[in-house]
Amino acid sequence: MEDPTDRHAEKMKRIKAARDEMMLSKTEEKGLVIVHTGSGKGKSSSGFGMVMRCIAHGMPCAVVQFIKGDRDTGEKTLLRDRFAKECRFFVSGEGFTWETQDRERDIAAAQNGWRIAQKQILDPQIQFVLLDEINIALRYDYLDVDEVVDFLRNDKPHMTHVCLTGRNAKPELIEIADLVTEMTLIKHPFRSGVMAQRGIEF
Amino acid sequence: MEDPTDRHAEKMKRIKAARDEMMLSKTEEKGLVIVHTGSGKGKSSSGFGMVMRCIAHGMPCAVVQFIKGDRDTGEKTLLRDRFAKECRFFVSGEGFTWETQDRERDIAAAQNGWRIAQKQILDPQIQFVLLDEINIALRYDYLDVDEVVDFLRNDKPHMTHVCLTGRNAKPELIEIADLVTEMTLIKHPFRSGVMAQRGIEF
Repeated sequence: MEDPTDRHAEKMKRIKAARDEMMLSKTEEKGLVIVHTGSGKGKSSSGFGMVMRCIAHGMPCAVVQFIKGDRDTGEKTLLRDRFAKECRFFVSGEGFTWETQDRERDIAAAQNGWRIAQKQILDPQIQFVLLDEINIALRYDYLDVDEVVDFLRNDKPHMTHVCLTGRNAKPELIEIADLVTEMTLIKHPFRSGVMAQRGIEF
Repeated sequence: MEDPTDRHAEKMKRIKAARDEMMLSKTEEKGLVIVHTGSGKGKSSSGFGMVMRCIAHGMPCAVVQFIKGDRDTGEKTLLRDRFAKECRFFVSGEGFTWETQDRERDIAAAQNGWRIAQKQILDPQIQFVLLDEINIALRYDYLDVDEVVDFLRNDKPHMTHVCLTGRNAKPELIEIADLVTEMTLIKHPFRSGVMAQRGIEF
């Protein structure tokens, strides 16, 4: 009878060979358009996780926060206090839209954020740009999705990565993106009366 | 005719009132069991994003990497070089399981990682523990899911957060978790021949 340990090694060897071959066919390098959407947690946190990875690899970053902005989040504190040299940090919004109750002001803030975003994306020094919660601004039509899509497709430098987060990503954006993840909510502690907690939610 | 600007303000005011009331009912504070699963990107990056948030809030962390370990990832470099005081970092595995082709060695590495994990979770100084890719070790039965679930339910200190990542999370784990997100793959650049790129994938 065959030894199960040998069988395991054999199986893993086959998986490794298939994987190595697959990786060899992946030769293109390009700056990606990345979208994190869905109603689950992790859209912004994984955007910030990627910022941290880029910083670790010596790739200068920029973050533009749309909509959010009134609260001192951990990521803002950390990037401003500890990584001011490696990452530029901009806040365009003044809180979620139901906090301001002023559509004109929200539109002006979003448009301002988009002007900053374009400048950062075009800056040859910057290799990764996080547009945090921009999908909310697009969803409420504070920004024109055609203009954003057109810019990402035609004006973004080839090697620059741009990550756009927020629920309800527009189909036009998903269409031109290279990497799209939907964060799906399976279980959330809000439902059982647990409050938003530092470190986890902000 | 009603001014559309007033109508917007009115609607946003109602949303804010409903939201404020909802938030008032969320009064419980507790350490969460958080699971990031699914085949999409962002499971580990958002785990690391939360580590960064906790560091920003002065909450000491620990990371135990299961399975992964042979590659110098950005997060490992950054945490070891810049945040050695704020975050302990442990690597238990020696690469993905198809790299080692040795089941006995993988089991020993996973068991070793789990021993470290338990110690970190029980340490009253540590407020957030990331068990990166532990779901892979559970899936291959390198670790006993009942033992892990039992520990999280009965031995984890009340205020300590534990985040477990990796695809194919076991139902037993999802059952006891407070916050579960499934990262769903919508589009991946591998499919169109783009290689894994630093800052994004590692």
